[in-house]
Amino acid sequence: MSFVPARTGVWLMGARGSVATTAVTGALALRAGLAGTDGCVTELPALARPWLPPIPSLVFGGHDIADTPLPKKAEALGAAGVLPAHLASALTAELSEVDAAVLPLPPSVDGIARDLVAFREAHGLDRVVVINVASTEPVPSDDLLNADAETLPPSSRAAWAAFLAGCAYVDFTPSTGARLPALDALAREHGVPYAGNDGKTGETLVKSVLAPMFAARNLRVRSWSGLNLLGGGDGARLADPAANAAKTASKQRVLADTLGYQPQGTTRIDYVETLGDFKAAWDLISFSGFLGTTMRMEFTWHGCDSALAAPLILDLARLTAAAHAAGRSGPLPELAFFFKDPIGTAPAALADQWSLLTSFVEDLSGSFPGAGEV
Amino acid sequence: MSFVPARTGVWLMGARGSVATTAVTGALALRAGLAGTDGCVTELPALARPWLPPIPSLVFGGHDIADTPLPKKAEALGAAGVLPAHLASALTAELSEVDAAVLPLPPSVDGIARDLVAFREAHGLDRVVVINVASTEPVPSDDLLNADAETLPPSSRAAWAAFLAGCAYVDFTPSTGARLPALDALAREHGVPYAGNDGKTGETLVKSVLAPMFAARNLRVRSWSGLNLLGGGDGARLADPAANAAKTASKQRVLADTLGYQPQGTTRIDYVETLGDFKAAWDLISFSGFLGTTMRMEFTWHGCDSALAAPLILDLARLTAAAHAAGRSGPLPELAFFFKDPIGTAPAALADQWSLLTSFVEDLSGSFPGAGEV
Amino acid sequence: MSFVPARTGVWLMGARGSVATTAVTGALALRAGLAGTDGCVTELPALARPWLPPIPSLVFGGHDIADTPLPKKAEALGAAGVLPAHLASALTAELSEVDAAVLPLPPSVDGIARDLVAFREAHGLDRVVVINVASTEPVPSDDLLNADAETLPPSSRAAWAAFLAGCAYVDFTPSTGARLPALDALAREHGVPYAGNDGKTGETLVKSVLAPMFAARNLRVRSWSGLNLLGGGDGARLADPAANAAKTASKQRVLADTLGYQPQGTTRIDYVETLGDFKAAWDLISFSGFLGTTMRMEFTWHGCDSALAAPLILDLARLTAAAHAAGRSGPLPELAFFFKDPIGTAPAALADQWSLLTSFVEDLSGSFPGAGEV
Amino acid sequence: MSFVPARTGVWLMGARGSVATTAVTGALALRAGLAGTDGCVTELPALARPWLPPIPSLVFGGHDIADTPLPKKAEALGAAGVLPAHLASALTAELSEVDAAVLPLPPSVDGIARDLVAFREAHGLDRVVVINVASTEPVPSDDLLNADAETLPPSSRAAWAAFLAGCAYVDFTPSTGARLPALDALAREHGVPYAGNDGKTGETLVKSVLAPMFAARNLRVRSWSGLNLLGGGDGARLADPAANAAKTASKQRVLADTLGYQPQGTTRIDYVETLGDFKAAWDLISFSGFLGTTMRMEFTWHGCDSALAAPLILDLARLTAAAHAAGRSGPLPELAFFFKDPIGTAPAALADQWSLLTSFVEDLSGSFPGAGEV
Repeated sequence: MSFVPARTGVWLMGARGSVATTAVTGALALRAGLAGTDGCVTELPALARPWLPPIPSLVFGGHDIADTPLPKKAEALGAAGVLPAHLASALTAELSEVDAAVLPLPPSVDGIARDLVAFREAHGLDRVVVINVASTEPVPSDDLLNADAETLPPSSRAAWAAFLAGCAYVDFTPSTGARLPALDALAREHGVPYAGNDGKTGETLVKSVLAPMFAARNLRVRSWSGLNLLGGGDGARLADPAANAAKTASKQRVLADTLGYQPQGTTRIDYVETLGDFKAAWDLISFSGFLGTTMRMEFTWHGCDSALAAPLILDLARLTAAAHAAGRSGPLPELAFFFKDPIGTAPAALADQWSLLTSFVEDLSGSFPGAGEV
Repeated sequence: MSFVPARTGVWLMGARGSVATTAVTGALALRAGLAGTDGCVTELPALARPWLPPIPSLVFGGHDIADTPLPKKAEALGAAGVLPAHLASALTAELSEVDAAVLPLPPSVDGIARDLVAFREAHGLDRVVVINVASTEPVPSDDLLNADAETLPPSSRAAWAAFLAGCAYVDFTPSTGARLPALDALAREHGVPYAGNDGKTGETLVKSVLAPMFAARNLRVRSWSGLNLLGGGDGARLADPAANAAKTASKQRVLADTLGYQPQGTTRIDYVETLGDFKAAWDLISFSGFLGTTMRMEFTWHGCDSALAAPLILDLARLTAAAHAAGRSGPLPELAFFFKDPIGTAPAALADQWSLLTSFVEDLSGSFPGAGEV
Repeated sequence: MSFVPARTGVWLMGARGSVATTAVTGALALRAGLAGTDGCVTELPALARPWLPPIPSLVFGGHDIADTPLPKKAEALGAAGVLPAHLASALTAELSEVDAAVLPLPPSVDGIARDLVAFREAHGLDRVVVINVASTEPVPSDDLLNADAETLPPSSRAAWAAFLAGCAYVDFTPSTGARLPALDALAREHGVPYAGNDGKTGETLVKSVLAPMFAARNLRVRSWSGLNLLGGGDGARLADPAANAAKTASKQRVLADTLGYQPQGTTRIDYVETLGDFKAAWDLISFSGFLGTTMRMEFTWHGCDSALAAPLILDLARLTAAAHAAGRSGPLPELAFFFKDPIGTAPAALADQWSLLTSFVEDLSGSFPGAGEV
Repeated sequence: MSFVPARTGVWLMGARGSVATTAVTGALALRAGLAGTDGCVTELPALARPWLPPIPSLVFGGHDIADTPLPKKAEALGAAGVLPAHLASALTAELSEVDAAVLPLPPSVDGIARDLVAFREAHGLDRVVVINVASTEPVPSDDLLNADAETLPPSSRAAWAAFLAGCAYVDFTPSTGARLPALDALAREHGVPYAGNDGKTGETLVKSVLAPMFAARNLRVRSWSGLNLLGGGDGARLADPAANAAKTASKQRVLADTLGYQPQGTTRIDYVETLGDFKAAWDLISFSGFLGTTMRMEFTWHGCDSALAAPLILDLARLTAAAHAAGRSGPLPELAFFFKDPIGTAPAALADQWSLLTSFVEDLSGSFPGAGEV
């Protein structure tokens, strides 16, 4: 009896945004044989497994308040250099089909949950992973611990609905999402796992290898300052100081976690509309070594956030669905590799997160005895 | 019965150079309570052990063809900002004492070995580690496999003498050193360990964490180009294309080893006298991710090579002496963490090298049962 | 009859700060033959003139609320690498002598003016130039147009006192200083010139040559963003958003003035205490050329503000004193070369400011007919 | 009587290369109203004149040994991001028409000259400017002073043919071109002007404003080192050390010319195929100021050489044609603004070159009395 991977759905909150559109276009391009798997972590030999739902088999749907349809959005991303321009035109029909499964956001948690169940049933899916790739929310000013479902921020309402509907939930943004005791309890009650927060795609990724390097060499980091310049929708949102605060705090956390102390300096985010989907970040690190000699390192990162995030969305869908299938519920700290601000207790150094991830995949293998090795 | 760490000598080939002078001054400053242990890896909680010879207890000697005495060299390094200027004047007497144990390089391997034995006996040392911090040698043009002791390059003659004298040998330069079958056999025959080559203090250190980061994210590195600008004695030596070739090859190796392929681009070294002991390196990495989107990272490293190398010299002396005491002979690939071009089979990613190093220290602990935990 | 340059005094508001201490130490070092004239613009062949008061002949005094004496401050700057450490010790006596002429700031404008007159008389000076190198003031929130002498900010009160005492005034800070109609009138009434504001020593200096380069090539600057990291007293002061606002506005002005439009992006200032007197600035410029192709330039500036500012203080003292001697009163826009935010109508491109400065010096020559060419 | 600008032809040596294709596509796009004039210096108010041949009126032809037709080459440049992709498809017919005027390179100087005359007559042109945008030639090893027409390098044979045919000649490459006494004499004899060499489009452009900045501030440049990474055809050619030598020498010349001394350091060029038409250059400048304090500046330039060069080709065609019409013959040092290694005696600072250029245009105006102001 050969192993058949489960049919898996991916429900994107913010399904017509840049990250979601890039992820969907990429999955469709893979299915059509028009693209390779660069950037997909679960395609690396160390992680690829026959029991992971294949990328071409993923079924997409989602909510969005925007109404630019996916084919048009993909075309715009092609013109901006985020995607190869020919992909958008080659995949118009497939993108339209997915776009038909993108619904306006219902006003109630129950409404969201109903959409999720309907999606699962319509497509005969074994399970669905809800992934939040909507804009970053402002840091909530009110006490959320006693909030009810309808007064929570949208990311938490999405998590609530996901759990009610028996779906796993992943938050790729720094928003609150599932990080509330009541939601944790709800996830466990419904036997579904969740993961997050805030996808690690650029400057913080680099920090998560450089800071451990300084620590392993016993070099004292005196200051670590950074400036992130970004256009695009997320950039505009982050020009709002409240949202900005959430993001910059999560960007400096890795330093204290890996160095054991917080060096001087802050990380700033500025919106520069003309940069579009491409982000530029500069970091200056001053450090001292033996006998106090002061030295310095700088780096600049010129990345395309959507192109960096999209394959991780596919990775997270595959891994979270498999964890769900294997019976895991509650937080998945083993996915810390993907996040700036991992839920649960997890190491902050990328190499340690990688070890944790490979062990996690190894452990999950035991739950899929029918599946041979790749 | 309390554990007494063995009396350990450190014999420096190139004892009056910048790296050696900084290492000696630092050890003397530690002994005098004038400095801390920043930059010393073996002082990190993960590696510190009571059976490692304490830095203040190390006894120094060495060979050099230069005749500027250590106090004068330390003063020059103070003026250049490599050391705090006050240390050189505070430690004049102690530096002079060490300088008295710096001898001219004997013309024969036997002569070198005799100096090592005499040093060990004069100071009542349990063992001596010979560390090569002399200038980088040109890549040897002749076949060295059949050379005899006297026709080998100086670094290999030093290793030969060390082994004859029952001393461990560490090569902190990219020179040939102990990397010849005949020398490996000699080390095993005399029951002494050896380690090397080419201390990893700057650009390559950074590469050894960034390249694994790109690999772990399945990002394709298209090109990796670098320029190293350095003054100082090593810089002048490396202006010689033959020596340069040795160094740049060892600087790109980490890429193929961690990525699994060799990206386009080379690393260049230029001599810029006015930069003195401070080195500037720039690296440009172009990479592509999901759907082929091209992105870019750059970094600049402004480091002081002597300040970065000196504490590692002390670390290597301590670890190699302990390995010798524990009965290890032949190559020590577990010290790959310290080197650009590690001897033996060892991982190339810094995090893996760190794991290997901590396991090594853990394993050695079993050889020193009398020593409690720190 | 040979020409005798006039005896000139330099009165420093903030005389015990880093910039003032560096300027005074440098002038004393020049007098003692211990230093050269690097960084002094008026020593370039294009500007050197026999009628400029020689740097060694300048007589210093000043006001400060700080009480760390100049020799001690110079010693600290030596330890920090701003000055050669040996200069502070070689010039202790001379620095103490200047320090004796540094007085506490009197509470009234009249008191300040009295100190200026007393200084001029005590030293038999032909004229005195008052230079403000005190900390940057917050942008004044109130309407200053109708303020009286005692309710003005300190920089304006210093200008008021200078004019009353018949002294020229230079503002090297972004503070209000002499930039008020009433003060302009007062300067003209007393026949004294004034200049300012905000010495151009780093990032803005670079902007003042790069922005004209883009303009001359008809390249469209899409965005220009910058981050300035600085420690030291001025850095702490600029962490105050109000002072910061004054500084960053004056830093972006050069772009609109030379490009003819304001590109996207802002300049930020962050305080990083550990950087001390050394400042690091990063600028990212995105621009588009023929057919809209987007390109990018970045630069990093690692400068020592005190070392860059100090020689300009001496230049400004010499040039302003000579203008005063030549009968000039009111603003000196010809000194725009030195300032981020020049008073009066002046070009913003450094090359144009240089032409204006050389013409100014040429014109002044006519006022000193007894003085031969250098 | 209204002024009618002369009909002007532009003959491109290397007409199917990236620079030529971009220049032609851009001129055709301007004619079709599909593009603006960004990057065209002669469209700036300071230089625009009614007597300059309008860009849309220029008639193109050329020689090339490559046989990829212009429409195909433009399409490739569109895919590479050098041009907007839609331009290549919108202008296929126009590009094909120009491509029909691109001929194989005749083996003799006379043959080249015959093609030039035929082009001028076929299109009824008043005059033709020959512009060399072919690949950089190796530095000639032989003495060229006594060479005859047929043994000269291709760039010099092109100049020879241009002069014989009564055409002006511009060399946009570092090749020898018209820089031989015999060719200078020939140009004067035939009454035609010539200009060059080596278009200044990136790192050297930046140097030509930064070096004067350091000079004007009397800051001592201790070292200036650079690395240029480039793909594309020119990159491959420059991997040849002989061609490289020509280019790097012309890149450092601006430093000695503007600073008055040659700082330490060199400029290197490396070929990195994957970078394509986009070039990355890094420069590190170490400098010292007042009292010897050492400071540092770095910059990175990420430019598209073809997009930077193409509009300058159009500028040079217009200006050289106008100079020819005005009766100028021999070298045009007034065009130094455009070149790394200007022919004749010309200033090296960009601002001075700009002044010279605006004066040149002002002077030429006198030769076209019928033409009103723009």
